[in-house]
Amino acid sequence: MKTKYQQEFEKDRFAKNTGIILVDVVPGYAKAQLEISEAHHNAVGVVQGGALFTLADFCFAAASNSHGRVALAIDAEISFFKAVSSGVLTAVAKEISLNGKLGTYLVEITNEEGDCIAHFKGTVYRKKDTYNF
Amino acid sequence: MKTKYQQEFEKDRFAKNTGIILVDVVPGYAKAQLEISEAHHNAVGVVQGGALFTLADFCFAAASNSHGRVALAIDAEISFFKAVSSGVLTAVAKEISLNGKLGTYLVEITNEEGDCIAHFKGTVYRKKDTYNF
Amino acid sequence: MKTKYQQEFEKDRFAKNTGIILVDVVPGYAKAQLEISEAHHNAVGVVQGGALFTLADFCFAAASNSHGRVALAIDAEISFFKAVSSGVLTAVAKEISLNGKLGTYLVEITNEEGDCIAHFKGTVYRKKDTYNF
Amino acid sequence: MKTKYQQEFEKDRFAKNTGIILVDVVPGYAKAQLEISEAHHNAVGVVQGGALFTLADFCFAAASNSHGRVALAIDAEISFFKAVSSGVLTAVAKEISLNGKLGTYLVEITNEEGDCIAHFKGTVYRKKDTYNF
Repeated sequence: MKTKYQQEFEKDRFAKNTGIILVDVVPGYAKAQLEISEAHHNAVGVVQGGALFTLADFCFAAASNSHGRVALAIDAEISFFKAVSSGVLTAVAKEISLNGKLGTYLVEITNEEGDCIAHFKGTVYRKKDTYNF
Repeated sequence: MKTKYQQEFEKDRFAKNTGIILVDVVPGYAKAQLEISEAHHNAVGVVQGGALFTLADFCFAAASNSHGRVALAIDAEISFFKAVSSGVLTAVAKEISLNGKLGTYLVEITNEEGDCIAHFKGTVYRKKDTYNF
Repeated sequence: MKTKYQQEFEKDRFAKNTGIILVDVVPGYAKAQLEISEAHHNAVGVVQGGALFTLADFCFAAASNSHGRVALAIDAEISFFKAVSSGVLTAVAKEISLNGKLGTYLVEITNEEGDCIAHFKGTVYRKKDTYNF
Repeated sequence: MKTKYQQEFEKDRFAKNTGIILVDVVPGYAKAQLEISEAHHNAVGVVQGGALFTLADFCFAAASNSHGRVALAIDAEISFFKAVSSGVLTAVAKEISLNGKLGTYLVEITNEEGDCIAHFKGTVYRKKDTYNF
């Protein structure tokens, strides 16, 4: 059964259109997956950096909003380690810092063999507004 | 009339599916646009960070591959300044450093009023392979 | 004659020990300089990345605190374009975004020939506390 | 007894002047420490961002050059989580990606209580030149 958090994040149209699925979310942690198709390819036939970023960013958004307070992304950076063109990618977001105003998260994207495809870090500003899940 | 570069970059399926158009590309420079629709929204009704990143990343790819040598993204970072939910976004990529192996580019995304929505920096590794446009 | 801002920033012991001089600061802008000596070299005889970062970071701190409100660095990133081992380096910080809570700045470090040596971006969280200059 | 690697890295004048000590280095890993004094403080009495960056950057340089090939920093980014003004800081660098041309490292800086003070990521370009340790 899906939690209210999962239902909430499934309203993300861009992530949904990209084919991203939120697998798990608990406070400070989230996991998401993307099954690669040709729709994610760039001009040279590998997954576009934007598709990888979207997977990581969505996972980061789920983890950073998981405490019930609205969290807005300030910035993010991603390192690309390996080009991929097929298979299922898994992103896992973990909280490495949280205080009243700011939170920072690392997201690792791996392929089915467990190779690290990309590494992402993102920081949010935490508003006072809360979700009424 | 479209140049061969533009034709080449239009093979980017993910950027195309996202609705991104390559407006201009000359060596070391590129401009791209995205007309926002609800398909680009996240769960809270503003443009998803991944859609903004994809716009910037595509523009960066065009500028960095514009010299005719294959350029692969090593890493990229993006700062988000303002949430937007409609209108046309324009990304402009400029080269700030280029040597035999590496190139670095800044990309600014602005809305129709000229406000800076997001600022991106990306670095590529330049392979020896060349395009035969 | 030195402004109160300049006097305030000269209390930065680490920047001072590194040999960094604040040349100019006005709201949203700052310029700083460093004359390279062997004291700034790393194990292979070029300026250490930390010395370049410190120059940029100090310039960023001056620009971001220049509005009179205490600004704390959230994060920063730097790209290194060219190794240098002597001469005077100049850093110029410019504000690219400012709102009630956050500010973002680009800093460019150039050598005496005007070559771009490094490019830095930093973001601050703006506290409500003000300086009583 | 010090290894040749440690002896080599101790030639880093800027890190040495900053008071940084290389505690350990093995291929793909390094640990360094800094005992904070007022010489590392900024204008508001906490450790300057440049001092933290220098600690992380030096540790990153040790880890990335540890394979015996010359590795040059392309870029780096750091997130600051907690202001500190005294005590001993420890930086640990770990390799998260390595191929023939590029390597990426995460560096975590902790205080004596084990709190994460700052988190750093850096990427190197690996030259063909080797050290003759």
